[in-house]
Amino acid sequence: VVDLSADYRLRSAAEFEAWYGVAHGDPEGLAEAVYGVPELYRKQIAGAQLVANPGCYPAGALLAVVPLVRAGLGRPDGIVVDAKSGATGAGAQTRKPDPMYQYVEANENVQAYGVGRHRHTAEIEQELSLVAAASVRVAFTPHLVPMNRGLFTTAYVPMARDVSTAECLAVYRDAYEREPFVRVLDEGELPRTRSVIGSNYGDVAVVADRRTGRAVCLSVLDNLGKGGAAQGIQNLNIMHGWDERTGLEAPPVYP
Amino acid sequence: VVDLSADYRLRSAAEFEAWYGVAHGDPEGLAEAVYGVPELYRKQIAGAQLVANPGCYPAGALLAVVPLVRAGLGRPDGIVVDAKSGATGAGAQTRKPDPMYQYVEANENVQAYGVGRHRHTAEIEQELSLVAAASVRVAFTPHLVPMNRGLFTTAYVPMARDVSTAECLAVYRDAYEREPFVRVLDEGELPRTRSVIGSNYGDVAVVADRRTGRAVCLSVLDNLGKGGAAQGIQNLNIMHGWDERTGLEAPPVYP
Amino acid sequence: VVDLSADYRLRSAAEFEAWYGVAHGDPEGLAEAVYGVPELYRKQIAGAQLVANPGCYPAGALLAVVPLVRAGLGRPDGIVVDAKSGATGAGAQTRKPDPMYQYVEANENVQAYGVGRHRHTAEIEQELSLVAAASVRVAFTPHLVPMNRGLFTTAYVPMARDVSTAECLAVYRDAYEREPFVRVLDEGELPRTRSVIGSNYGDVAVVADRRTGRAVCLSVLDNLGKGGAAQGIQNLNIMHGWDERTGLEAPPVYP
Amino acid sequence: VVDLSADYRLRSAAEFEAWYGVAHGDPEGLAEAVYGVPELYRKQIAGAQLVANPGCYPAGALLAVVPLVRAGLGRPDGIVVDAKSGATGAGAQTRKPDPMYQYVEANENVQAYGVGRHRHTAEIEQELSLVAAASVRVAFTPHLVPMNRGLFTTAYVPMARDVSTAECLAVYRDAYEREPFVRVLDEGELPRTRSVIGSNYGDVAVVADRRTGRAVCLSVLDNLGKGGAAQGIQNLNIMHGWDERTGLEAPPVYP
Repeated sequence: VVDLSADYRLRSAAEFEAWYGVAHGDPEGLAEAVYGVPELYRKQIAGAQLVANPGCYPAGALLAVVPLVRAGLGRPDGIVVDAKSGATGAGAQTRKPDPMYQYVEANENVQAYGVGRHRHTAEIEQELSLVAAASVRVAFTPHLVPMNRGLFTTAYVPMARDVSTAECLAVYRDAYEREPFVRVLDEGELPRTRSVIGSNYGDVAVVADRRTGRAVCLSVLDNLGKGGAAQGIQNLNIMHGWDERTGLEAPPVYP
Repeated sequence: VVDLSADYRLRSAAEFEAWYGVAHGDPEGLAEAVYGVPELYRKQIAGAQLVANPGCYPAGALLAVVPLVRAGLGRPDGIVVDAKSGATGAGAQTRKPDPMYQYVEANENVQAYGVGRHRHTAEIEQELSLVAAASVRVAFTPHLVPMNRGLFTTAYVPMARDVSTAECLAVYRDAYEREPFVRVLDEGELPRTRSVIGSNYGDVAVVADRRTGRAVCLSVLDNLGKGGAAQGIQNLNIMHGWDERTGLEAPPVYP
Repeated sequence: VVDLSADYRLRSAAEFEAWYGVAHGDPEGLAEAVYGVPELYRKQIAGAQLVANPGCYPAGALLAVVPLVRAGLGRPDGIVVDAKSGATGAGAQTRKPDPMYQYVEANENVQAYGVGRHRHTAEIEQELSLVAAASVRVAFTPHLVPMNRGLFTTAYVPMARDVSTAECLAVYRDAYEREPFVRVLDEGELPRTRSVIGSNYGDVAVVADRRTGRAVCLSVLDNLGKGGAAQGIQNLNIMHGWDERTGLEAPPVYP
Repeated sequence: VVDLSADYRLRSAAEFEAWYGVAHGDPEGLAEAVYGVPELYRKQIAGAQLVANPGCYPAGALLAVVPLVRAGLGRPDGIVVDAKSGATGAGAQTRKPDPMYQYVEANENVQAYGVGRHRHTAEIEQELSLVAAASVRVAFTPHLVPMNRGLFTTAYVPMARDVSTAECLAVYRDAYEREPFVRVLDEGELPRTRSVIGSNYGDVAVVADRRTGRAVCLSVLDNLGKGGAAQGIQNLNIMHGWDERTGLEAPPVYP
């Protein structure tokens, strides 16, 4: 099973209840589930019966931040994740009678929502805490921007030491070297959501802002691609031992 | 004179040269110029011969952050300003042959630019440093989002102590109580760029994210309104002793 | 009363029932109502107790076509009206749970609706029949295009004789010479919806396509402006004998 | 050769010169070229050395109109073709410094261009004339609407006799029965550009407007798909005797 819901994404039933406001219906099942980010858990996914496909925001944030924290270049305290999502990020809600997703309301508009309390925060913190081997708290703000597909993540990570953009990028290239769907941009290039629309690609960049001692970690993905259904297909392929790219080789649609 | 260029926004010729890459042509003139944010410098504007209309990003960031820092609730270190702008923010560039602002490139797309080196950073830091009476460094990232008008600012400010959203909002209400063009939203409401398009209004909100010890300070304005020409008219009105709202009373165009 | 509904727009209760599918509730009242297009009925509106504000599509079509037909340059048979409307044209429906007006459905999409049976057809035919003193049938197709405001009308009118664009334009300039809210474009210019957004203006152009013997009559208006509420205010001003422009002098918001 | 330019689309060098304003550089070559609409010229394309890929507007107009005219249900006189195109229809111009295609100008805007003189008119007339065995003149108006991809064609064709929508649709189903990339919609359904974006599909519908004696023929395609490069690939496949769908089987990207 590749579960697209949020039911098995968090390892702790208590954490689930804290963020979702209801008791978890299958606390024992949590131990069995694998969090479906292939770049983090490929081996575990390969043997899993139950994969919890990640939320779109965590998918984007983890792609952008994990390599830096894992390499010890990013400090796990004081991380800010600012995300900008097209309307498909809302999933089924986009077809519900929610005024926020009516055309005349969403068009020519930017708005934040769920400030300080969006449920995807828990996923981001869980995974970064495991990577950092420390309790990580993340200030996360999602925004709705006027486009259908695309999720842009801008993460600000305090740097553990004064390193260059090139040194940071080397870490990312190393981390994603063999990943078929993650592209690390060259220094001087910045991601744009258009580059991945209709595909399972995620593009990643990092800029060392030495003036402020912060790394700006950026990623883009399609919320219905690497942030949703396509990621689920990649997980399915891995679970079955198929070529990971099966069904996912159509290039992005640009523009 | 209300100067819409960046020539007289920075008080220091050295700082100007550092960010703009050219020597300042009139360093003596800098002392005379007043930075044109009425909410900060109304009295000085009233007597000024030369007002430097602020950049759109600083206009949005200062509206969102200044009250919190001035009240001592926000710490001046570790501030992150993440901004999302419509294409009119680029001013005359929107009519230049810059591929970034071609329709098919900008539409259905989000992109960051100038990460770690956008010139408006200097304005934001200058004014926050004066407010905090300390040297403030700000991690600032501008993004281009697919809409004509509107600038959304999401600022993350470390909190000096553990206060509630209500306490923060009280500070903002106090700060903007008599301001004709700044509207502080009620707790639970978040700004949306649509609410101010075509007007000189700026809407402001703040959320105390006590989990992470950060205040999320949000503002919206029209980059051609409070972030541009309309702000200039407000400055002009103040300089002449006219009713500050003259020529600025048309309501926003919604939707 | 300025009635924004469709109840009093058609003079014939039978015609109303044919297009709206219900019996008219006040057939006697129809004789009293004046059709609220100031450019056609200014005098009658001035003395009216009940003005039926026109539909947005008829408002656009009549501005574009009436002068040509009235002058005898346009033949009343075989007229085609092809209209492209932003989502606000749907009025209250834009806030109803209609999937057609959800953001992800309407964005990056063009669609026709009500082909051959849109109710506004009856208004257009009624008024053109009166102008032509003949029974006029119009092939009318409305389209939803991805923008908030704006209605573009492209009407194709068989020409009664072979005249130039300049001769056609002279007729329009004459017809709208004293109209405060109708602007006839110069030869070689074509209307764009952006030019009238947020205002009560309607822009009109005509091109004599002598190859095909058809005049292409084009108009733009804001469906919430000259195609809606602002038109209602103009009617109100006329009914009261006030300056017709009262409350309507804010310029369009561009871009 | 599959030629994406307009050089070999018109059979007559005189007609080319009349519309393009320059003498044709290879008048002898015109006889050899095949007009690249597979639904019309599949056999000729199969044996061709030079295929002239059609313009996007003719591609859409011919899909919508040809079956009706060929069946004798549509009269070849008095045809109106009203087209609405996304910005990619402009091809390389979308990257040129043309203000019309700047984001702030094209966004939230509809405009007509080339009224009565767009060069694609000649292609439409040439092919309809061949189908009707008569000299056909078409009133054609292209419009730019705010989206990247997608071309919506609304054609108004005088009906030769009073037939129902169902009878018209039967003709279209027959015409496109074996076409892999043309989908005839069911009665009551209308095309939407979103349904074909990123693909080589063209969707077609027809409504018999018996009140006015006109058939409204509607089609949608992606101007970079069936209206451009993908059509070219289909032609290439046919020229080589390959499966016509090779490289064209990725489904549309929706939404």
